[in-house]
Amino acid sequence: MGWFTKSDYQPKGKHCYITGGTQGLGKALAESLVRQGAHVTVVARDVAKGKKVEAELKSIAQPDQIIQFISADLTSPLSSLESLVKASEPFNGRVPDYIYLCAGFSKPKYMVDSSLEEFQAGFDGTYWVSAYTAQAAVKLMVKQRVLGKIVFVSSFLGYTSFAGYTNYSPGKYALRGLADALRSEMLLHDIKIHIFMPCGIAGPGYEAENEFKPAVTLKIEEDDTQIPPEQCAKALETGLRKGYYQITDNIICDFARLRSNGGVPTNNFFADCFYLLVSSCGLPIWRMTADATVRKGRNEVHADYEARGIYEQASK
Amino acid sequence: MGWFTKSDYQPKGKHCYITGGTQGLGKALAESLVRQGAHVTVVARDVAKGKKVEAELKSIAQPDQIIQFISADLTSPLSSLESLVKASEPFNGRVPDYIYLCAGFSKPKYMVDSSLEEFQAGFDGTYWVSAYTAQAAVKLMVKQRVLGKIVFVSSFLGYTSFAGYTNYSPGKYALRGLADALRSEMLLHDIKIHIFMPCGIAGPGYEAENEFKPAVTLKIEEDDTQIPPEQCAKALETGLRKGYYQITDNIICDFARLRSNGGVPTNNFFADCFYLLVSSCGLPIWRMTADATVRKGRNEVHADYEARGIYEQASK
Repeated sequence: MGWFTKSDYQPKGKHCYITGGTQGLGKALAESLVRQGAHVTVVARDVAKGKKVEAELKSIAQPDQIIQFISADLTSPLSSLESLVKASEPFNGRVPDYIYLCAGFSKPKYMVDSSLEEFQAGFDGTYWVSAYTAQAAVKLMVKQRVLGKIVFVSSFLGYTSFAGYTNYSPGKYALRGLADALRSEMLLHDIKIHIFMPCGIAGPGYEAENEFKPAVTLKIEEDDTQIPPEQCAKALETGLRKGYYQITDNIICDFARLRSNGGVPTNNFFADCFYLLVSSCGLPIWRMTADATVRKGRNEVHADYEARGIYEQASK
Repeated sequence: MGWFTKSDYQPKGKHCYITGGTQGLGKALAESLVRQGAHVTVVARDVAKGKKVEAELKSIAQPDQIIQFISADLTSPLSSLESLVKASEPFNGRVPDYIYLCAGFSKPKYMVDSSLEEFQAGFDGTYWVSAYTAQAAVKLMVKQRVLGKIVFVSSFLGYTSFAGYTNYSPGKYALRGLADALRSEMLLHDIKIHIFMPCGIAGPGYEAENEFKPAVTLKIEEDDTQIPPEQCAKALETGLRKGYYQITDNIICDFARLRSNGGVPTNNFFADCFYLLVSSCGLPIWRMTADATVRKGRNEVHADYEARGIYEQASK
């Protein structure tokens, strides 16, 4: 409950570790944290992009701030641990204070059209890309008695889902399951867990995803707003400062939150009562509209499958 | 919405495929389906147990009913597909009509105490054990134009979670994400998706899980009811007959459902309004009580970690 939360979020002088920190939300967050006086480690795969971002961040940092880029494939558990250990070297082996898990990607596709490998990769790129780092970080924080914070990044599609997202929503729901269990468990060790549930984030990630998007999925999303990364990062940090567990960047996400978040702590009591009231009527209407959009797409999909020879000829 | 749902659930003469069908919910369901005149394939790992259950099911079946047991490790995508193909052989290669995904296990453990392998295995045994079969079945159903049904089995712990379940809840939430996306997507192909959200199921699975359970987890659950498998199976089939998307076996799960299910279809309109009202007050109170139980367990856990030398000596 919002009344009882208190926050000690204070990035100045802390070591902040940001996965997926070379673009979008991660990069915007890195810039904000550097400006607030934090030491920042940015982790991503692409070395050229990483070095460029590292230089940019150094250019806005004070001389005593440690800024570093680490290249790692975070869908590997070993690389996730190694990256965390490497980031800790300039800090005498001390694990980072704040971990922001922004890495991930989305390639919407119908399940029938997805290969097994795509189905698995979608999951690795939404869940394990954050879960491996979270487990490694939790173990190190407890061992070193660091009262840190871990911030997961899920999505509106971690609250509810629709056609096109069978390789995305499972991982984003799973992050919520992990965060819900871990929030409770980490009360044992005074480690704070948060989860960010943003709407679509404008930028190259979203543009890339739209190239693959099935027609029905695009249609359901046609009126959605994409929020610029800087605004997302601001909403996330505002939520952290208020001590919220589930943080959103948009009123639509708040509506979904109040009908989707189970028994976890809510935010502002009065606002949340309002969101719950509205969403209890609005969400079913939205869902019925989305279902109608899917049904309208039937003929086109059937014709496509017919043309591509997906249906077996002999009826059984 | 309950008003608009219609169901064509009719197991007689259908081929029903039940994973985890040699014990607990799966076995109870197999018996019920055989009695209703369905052809039943039961899938599980243990051959001796499987053969025994196969004989039991045959003893209550009519001579024209096909009853078979297949041994398979369903955490392997290849075995999941092979098992489905093998089950289809007596049916001229036709994919089963109804798929019930009951396989899975739970070994609650604190994340700090879990090895990477345990963390991964927990996920495979909750999510992939069902997701691989679901993907294979969906592809075959669409290809063969079989208007089948797929029934996922999640848990109360797929709605909300607490200490001890970091290797369980992520998979159970992920199943909900998969079912939510797939329910919408399969409107394209008239394939029906359902998800069962039971409370604890009494039996050997639950007893085995309690051997590993951390003290805090046991304490939070001490007043929980375990429901006999036959009663769970009955609740599941009642829900299927009513055409419900999310099916529960207990009023506590219904309370959690209304605050956790996002925009997916609800069940009985009037009952659901009541559940939403009660859960909006009750769920936060339950969560605060559970949080207090975790906090009370702190000293014991700290003393244990101290004794086991988990904390680093030098403070950093």
